Amino acid sequence: MTGAGMAIAARTETAEIGSSPVDRLFALVAGDMAATDRAIHERMGSSIALIPDLARHLIDSGGKRLRPLLTLATARLCGYEGRHHVNLAAAVEFIHSATLLHDDVVDASSLRRGKIAANVVWGNKPTILVGDFLFSQAFKLMVESGSMRVLDILASASAIIAEGEVLQLKSANNLATTEADYLHVVSAKTAALFAAAAEAGATIASAAPHVAEAFRIYGENLGVAFQLVDDALDYSGRQAQMGKSVGDDFREAKVTLPVILALERADDDDRRFWRRVIEAGLQQDGDLRHAIACVEETGAIRETQDRARRYADLARAALAPVPTGHLRDALIDVADFCVGRVY
Amino acid sequence: MTGAGMAIAARTETAEIGSSPVDRLFALVAGDMAATDRAIHERMGSSIALIPDLARHLIDSGGKRLRPLLTLATARLCGYEGRHHVNLAAAVEFIHSATLLHDDVVDASSLRRGKIAANVVWGNKPTILVGDFLFSQAFKLMVESGSMRVLDILASASAIIAEGEVLQLKSANNLATTEADYLHVVSAKTAALFAAAAEAGATIASAAPHVAEAFRIYGENLGVAFQLVDDALDYSGRQAQMGKSVGDDFREAKVTLPVILALERADDDDRRFWRRVIEAGLQQDGDLRHAIACVEETGAIRETQDRARRYADLARAALAPVPTGHLRDALIDVADFCVGRVY
Repeated sequence: MTGAGMAIAARTETAEIGSSPVDRLFALVAGDMAATDRAIHERMGSSIALIPDLARHLIDSGGKRLRPLLTLATARLCGYEGRHHVNLAAAVEFIHSATLLHDDVVDASSLRRGKIAANVVWGNKPTILVGDFLFSQAFKLMVESGSMRVLDILASASAIIAEGEVLQLKSANNLATTEADYLHVVSAKTAALFAAAAEAGATIASAAPHVAEAFRIYGENLGVAFQLVDDALDYSGRQAQMGKSVGDDFREAKVTLPVILALERADDDDRRFWRRVIEAGLQQDGDLRHAIACVEETGAIRETQDRARRYADLARAALAPVPTGHLRDALIDVADFCVGRVY
Repeated sequence: MTGAGMAIAARTETAEIGSSPVDRLFALVAGDMAATDRAIHERMGSSIALIPDLARHLIDSGGKRLRPLLTLATARLCGYEGRHHVNLAAAVEFIHSATLLHDDVVDASSLRRGKIAANVVWGNKPTILVGDFLFSQAFKLMVESGSMRVLDILASASAIIAEGEVLQLKSANNLATTEADYLHVVSAKTAALFAAAAEAGATIASAAPHVAEAFRIYGENLGVAFQLVDDALDYSGRQAQMGKSVGDDFREAKVTLPVILALERADDDDRRFWRRVIEAGLQQDGDLRHAIACVEETGAIRETQDRARRYADLARAALAPVPTGHLRDALIDVADFCVGRVY
């Protein structure tokens, strides 16, 4: 069985057991997703074996394929009968993968989807370059779709992602980071690609402009909700469930919403704690445990979850002008499910 | 005076004093190049000041703008009267700049165009991300040109560049690298963008396929010649002239053609020397001086230069089907000039 085949078999199995809304959405476009996985594995190929080896390490490590799923679902929802949505979904996953590879180098994080990060195995140099390769392949796939509008949507998203990542660097170690600053980062580094992925599917299907725009807004708000929950999870004990190591953001002294909210409600002792571990970056054994206690006791986790819920509501509301049916219902459920991940 | 304005004033001055073929080609498209510089400075802008600050550090540091020059020249040579060639030339320079920024991280080289590399000033993280930003902006500029064919040409070149850089990593510290391996790397990491830059200009001008192909072959061979000379210069004392530190390749244990040829002709002592400094990477004071003596005394530098000359001849010959005139003459002279840089 090929890597793609195994990924699909594993996913089908999960769908049978858990049957989350994401699994149900996945099942509704299963054939398209299988074709997308084939395109992904074909297009990450190169005569230089290191490239597919390194790319596969990331791409086959159990990512949820949420972004390409949006592209496939919105294209089908808009009645698309062609094949270009598959290449666009693969392109979206490549852009996401390139970002993760560059982020691995950037953040020196040692775990990515529960596996050792590519840069630890292969070093920074190949990791950066394979990211560049996947990014270039993404644009080649988009060119094949023949839609200049889609190229514009995804090229613009890519620029915004890079801006968001730079902005995020500025907020590291900086407790003056406001909730507005934080939301600016989240909107750029995460929500921009969710929005573009959803809009691209509708656009290749020649959807009416107000429908494509509805999907863009859905994706944007879903992306923000998703990232808020992710940032809350980084202060929870659910590493095994997420396949992600808890405390990544803490160790990198990122100022995420749980920290911003916990700091607002901290007493003098805890303010000194946050200044030491985040601003000064002086962390020792037990600090992560104390940080987790702080964000939980101040209600910062619950409030981050509440904020995420509001974005999920906006995502759902955005779908009002969209054709009704199973796919639309599934997209609504996905928004609800994404914010239900914390507890 | 703006940065762009100063760059042009400085260049015009050089043209008056030195008047190299590159300067003359530059003068023939001076208005277009001024517009390209404006586009470059406009499109590297961002509300996040770090991005233009870092990008400007590289882009305003005296690069020769040879690649965008090719795009502008071939477009005009093919009778183009539109404005899209300016955006495409800017896109070509952005792709090149993104590669250099990622290469700075990759190679840990401390000098780039005679200035401290961006990663030393700003760190690896922003350097990678600003590279990604410029790469995304390149695709946005291409989208504006409206030519799917040009997007295909430049996206394909970008993928090949990344492959070439990965391949180059494999040849580091590896004295078994053959001349064929080396040429494969050079063709991918350098010549692919020269070829694409030249072909893109002809393509936006709707040139006949055999003319666009002629420019592609010209660019490909010019790029190989250019890189061979660059690699020879890395073992010469002309750092000031090039604004580049000599010995970069040596310190990074890259196996370039001067090393391959010198090794072929080395006696037992010098074979042991190359194994120590390149394969084992054990370098000490005086080793670079000895390496330079080896490549000069074995004739490896002269032979690298001869090889470059042959590629320049192929570049010139490729222009046979191209419309005659000042621009074509200048392109021919540029090929000759590029290989005349060593002595």
